[in-house]
Amino acid sequence: MKGKKIIVIGGSAAGPKAASKAKRVDRKADVKLFQREPELSMATCGYPYYIGGVCDDRNMLIATPAGVKRDINFFINAKGVEAYVETEVVSIDRKKHKIVCKNFNNAAEAAYEYDKLIICTGSASKIPPVPGIDLKGITPLTKLKDADYLRKIRDEKKIKKAVVVGGGLIGLETCEALKLAGIEVTVVEMLPQILPFLEFDLAKLVENHIRSKGVDIIINDGVAEFFGENGGLKYVKLKSGKELSCELAVLSIGVSPNSKLAADVGLDIGEFNGISVNEYMQTSDPDVYAAGDCVEINNLITNKKMYAPFGDLANLEGRVAGENAALGNCVTFNGAIRTGICKIFDFSAGCTGLSETAAKNAGFTDIITAVNAGPDKPLFMKPNPLISKIIADKNTNAILGYQCIGQGDVSRQISTASVIITGKMKLDDIINLDLPYAPPFSLAIDHFIASAHILQNKLKGRMIGISVREVYERVAVNKEKVFLLDMRGENEYEIMRLGIGEVSIPLGALTKRFSELPSDKNAEIICFCKVSMRGYEAAVILNDKGWKNVKVMEGGVMAWPYSREK
Amino acid sequence: MKGKKIIVIGGSAAGPKAASKAKRVDRKADVKLFQREPELSMATCGYPYYIGGVCDDRNMLIATPAGVKRDINFFINAKGVEAYVETEVVSIDRKKHKIVCKNFNNAAEAAYEYDKLIICTGSASKIPPVPGIDLKGITPLTKLKDADYLRKIRDEKKIKKAVVVGGGLIGLETCEALKLAGIEVTVVEMLPQILPFLEFDLAKLVENHIRSKGVDIIINDGVAEFFGENGGLKYVKLKSGKELSCELAVLSIGVSPNSKLAADVGLDIGEFNGISVNEYMQTSDPDVYAAGDCVEINNLITNKKMYAPFGDLANLEGRVAGENAALGNCVTFNGAIRTGICKIFDFSAGCTGLSETAAKNAGFTDIITAVNAGPDKPLFMKPNPLISKIIADKNTNAILGYQCIGQGDVSRQISTASVIITGKMKLDDIINLDLPYAPPFSLAIDHFIASAHILQNKLKGRMIGISVREVYERVAVNKEKVFLLDMRGENEYEIMRLGIGEVSIPLGALTKRFSELPSDKNAEIICFCKVSMRGYEAAVILNDKGWKNVKVMEGGVMAWPYSREK
Repeated sequence: MKGKKIIVIGGSAAGPKAASKAKRVDRKADVKLFQREPELSMATCGYPYYIGGVCDDRNMLIATPAGVKRDINFFINAKGVEAYVETEVVSIDRKKHKIVCKNFNNAAEAAYEYDKLIICTGSASKIPPVPGIDLKGITPLTKLKDADYLRKIRDEKKIKKAVVVGGGLIGLETCEALKLAGIEVTVVEMLPQILPFLEFDLAKLVENHIRSKGVDIIINDGVAEFFGENGGLKYVKLKSGKELSCELAVLSIGVSPNSKLAADVGLDIGEFNGISVNEYMQTSDPDVYAAGDCVEINNLITNKKMYAPFGDLANLEGRVAGENAALGNCVTFNGAIRTGICKIFDFSAGCTGLSETAAKNAGFTDIITAVNAGPDKPLFMKPNPLISKIIADKNTNAILGYQCIGQGDVSRQISTASVIITGKMKLDDIINLDLPYAPPFSLAIDHFIASAHILQNKLKGRMIGISVREVYERVAVNKEKVFLLDMRGENEYEIMRLGIGEVSIPLGALTKRFSELPSDKNAEIICFCKVSMRGYEAAVILNDKGWKNVKVMEGGVMAWPYSREK
Repeated sequence: MKGKKIIVIGGSAAGPKAASKAKRVDRKADVKLFQREPELSMATCGYPYYIGGVCDDRNMLIATPAGVKRDINFFINAKGVEAYVETEVVSIDRKKHKIVCKNFNNAAEAAYEYDKLIICTGSASKIPPVPGIDLKGITPLTKLKDADYLRKIRDEKKIKKAVVVGGGLIGLETCEALKLAGIEVTVVEMLPQILPFLEFDLAKLVENHIRSKGVDIIINDGVAEFFGENGGLKYVKLKSGKELSCELAVLSIGVSPNSKLAADVGLDIGEFNGISVNEYMQTSDPDVYAAGDCVEINNLITNKKMYAPFGDLANLEGRVAGENAALGNCVTFNGAIRTGICKIFDFSAGCTGLSETAAKNAGFTDIITAVNAGPDKPLFMKPNPLISKIIADKNTNAILGYQCIGQGDVSRQISTASVIITGKMKLDDIINLDLPYAPPFSLAIDHFIASAHILQNKLKGRMIGISVREVYERVAVNKEKVFLLDMRGENEYEIMRLGIGEVSIPLGALTKRFSELPSDKNAEIICFCKVSMRGYEAAVILNDKGWKNVKVMEGGVMAWPYSREK
């Protein structure tokens, strides 16, 4: 009885998962794995925590939860998988079902036959094509050797200033790591905001938080040229002409799929340059599977392809590819919804599903959103703030997306929302959700449910919302005259206020102070408070009293990312 | 234009919510609220945290998130609700649509008419009918005055020893609070385990954790009699004859619905003695609604009635009752799934949906479960343990229940599972769930998804599980001879081991040491490791080598709640 020959190309996340799963479901199979790097099954997502000193033991990045190092001995003895490191697969012969690989150390080439091939070649950092890019001191952070390099910088304590190019998820994690390493950091982002997956207003709040930790952020600007001295980086010149002195630059402007090997042998490649796969993670060649950062997958909301290079998905995809390669197509990976989260200092920022912009781009024409700001726990539990935005389809009431940031428990919020969206649940299904409640964990009416309540109020026409961004642009930028009403208590107003011409009337005093409001019942009035719950209650009262154009500034002062009077 | 008259009885959670919502959706309505207690809208769930000193400001228990005290002025000014405190509704005249109430201070009676009535009379502590129950020093913890009493005890530092009667959710929160107050605590529980909503094995692990904090727990025993001296509690005699000296006893053997007022006027009462309501929170009288701890609600999984006195549900129910009372039936509360969570010292314990026992009782005949133990985060992030059990219907693959305990992020796990269950999602829907992943928050394959993977492996017949409890009973209690195989590394085995006759063979060495295994290929072999991932991998290898009766001890050493050799 001869076993099936399965070859896996790639040894980071999807590859080892696919290989181990294939062997586990078919012990007779002969499973070989080829890996370019010297290490196997590295915790790539952990590199910033090693660099920042959250973890000081490099071995932990390549060890099982029990602390066993995942080297070639581990793979053969515990997993039954024959792994080759520092070995690159240089060509695939699909007709002969054969690959040729080359060892980096001795340059020896060898050929191996396969019945099924699984391509898990991952992704590579995008490198901006600017002069000076080859200077010493400029590095991406994708490989363990990059992490080693940056960790050494931390340990040597010589470098004082760094620039992080790109304000995405990895960029910000790196920014925190470098800051923790005692390095002065500036983040440079081409777009008008960091974390482009977030709505503008929420991204601005994250930006404020990062700045408050002593990190500088430059938006709407990119690197024009790197300048050095004796081969080492000295400063960066931005497109705006601005110059930033620095001895280190970390590039994190995104990754692109390593699909060349697949493309070279004629496998279908998608619009994002990722390998095309079906729900079995099978490429256009039935004997070739692919998984991880090198593929494109289905977006379960839009049913369009997307590029989603996330570590968790790589593992799930690898698992499916491995099982199908071993047993024939029997399990599926249907796609994902683009869920992401990151921690930046004391803040977390997460998203799942579509942002408002992404929903519009995907063809949803009638979108409704709601912003919710508030504490994550009851007052007596020393709560932390959460600010979120929920996005729904007005026609079907389906939840399309959810974003949440703040010092509170964002992870629970995004987890909850991601299941709601995956389960194609509607607004009515979440209004009375039975989530776990106890004071150490959430409010009696959980933040996510409260967000749904606000959305419901808007859908029923009980509340007309206006975003902080629109208020800011109209009042502070365009100097429009708008009647703004701050419903917070006098003491709250004394401590902190926007100072953009608002009138302060505490909610409890409103019914006695109607005379201070515009006599024209058609005049626009914008109410708010700390989180805009009292703002909403004020609007209800004013509507009842005949004012016809009352709006609520969603999220209130807590969601206001612009400068304040105090 | 005369407004609708709405009367709300009860001012704790559901009542204020119903009253505020009614007024908000119908500003013309005349909304009155009657409350027996001196305070309104108290954070009852917060009492243990006030007693334990997590929060020292009593006002925070009756304040809005902005710190405004929710008294009668607040209700009239901010909410438009006329609230009466220390005023009990003593009778209802359904024909005349009238209630009579009585003020506790001046004994004055007054009558008020209603168009719609909302009963939110809450629940009362069950009091065990044992001699000595009236002694000073014995108290439940349901009212703010009980919290005041216990907080005073904390502050006075006179009392040294206390007994908590009842090891449920509130009992354990109280136990932590008293311990934090410097009091020696013993918990007495009638049942064979604390936290009866949890599976036995998980409850035992929580028990171990609480004991490790210096709290004594006595199970399978109840209070027979309280004994005092000069009217004050001196000791407690248990049914077993055991005597515990103590100056304080907190009763937390559960609550029962305050449904007498409703029953007295002929409203339908259910099998749990709660007021019967439909999905509109409407009682058998169309002009009377009810919400909160005084009602029975629908279990969304079993479609049977249940009694679920939880603070979060009270708020959601009150919101629905208020809106329907004001506008006519237009919104529904369809039920809940019995989700609960509590924090006990560094542990959290949560559940959602049906336990295995509850599922059997509800008529599910073909149940499959899986236990998962492991770290909540990657090794390099200083992870905390999570141990969970997932319960599914083998016929439909629907997820019926999920429980999780440990020092890790239980709240996210239970939130995720509660949405899965509410959304009636099946196993296939969660195998590749797109949950938020980053190292500070979860494993690349989240604990919940991994639990689903184990369940899938069992369903596919790839793994035969055996519970720690069954292994313990067979090996340690019945002294059965079973071949047990610990697959952990030698160093792990040196540091900690069960010592119940197991053979230690590290997974990586298994293929070279088959000779140490039973030669009879039909012999039962039970494999395990720290969490039983390696146990599972060993079972796969042994099955392949011809052993036909190989089982995996689910959850491994981490899930073992019994004593160990070391």
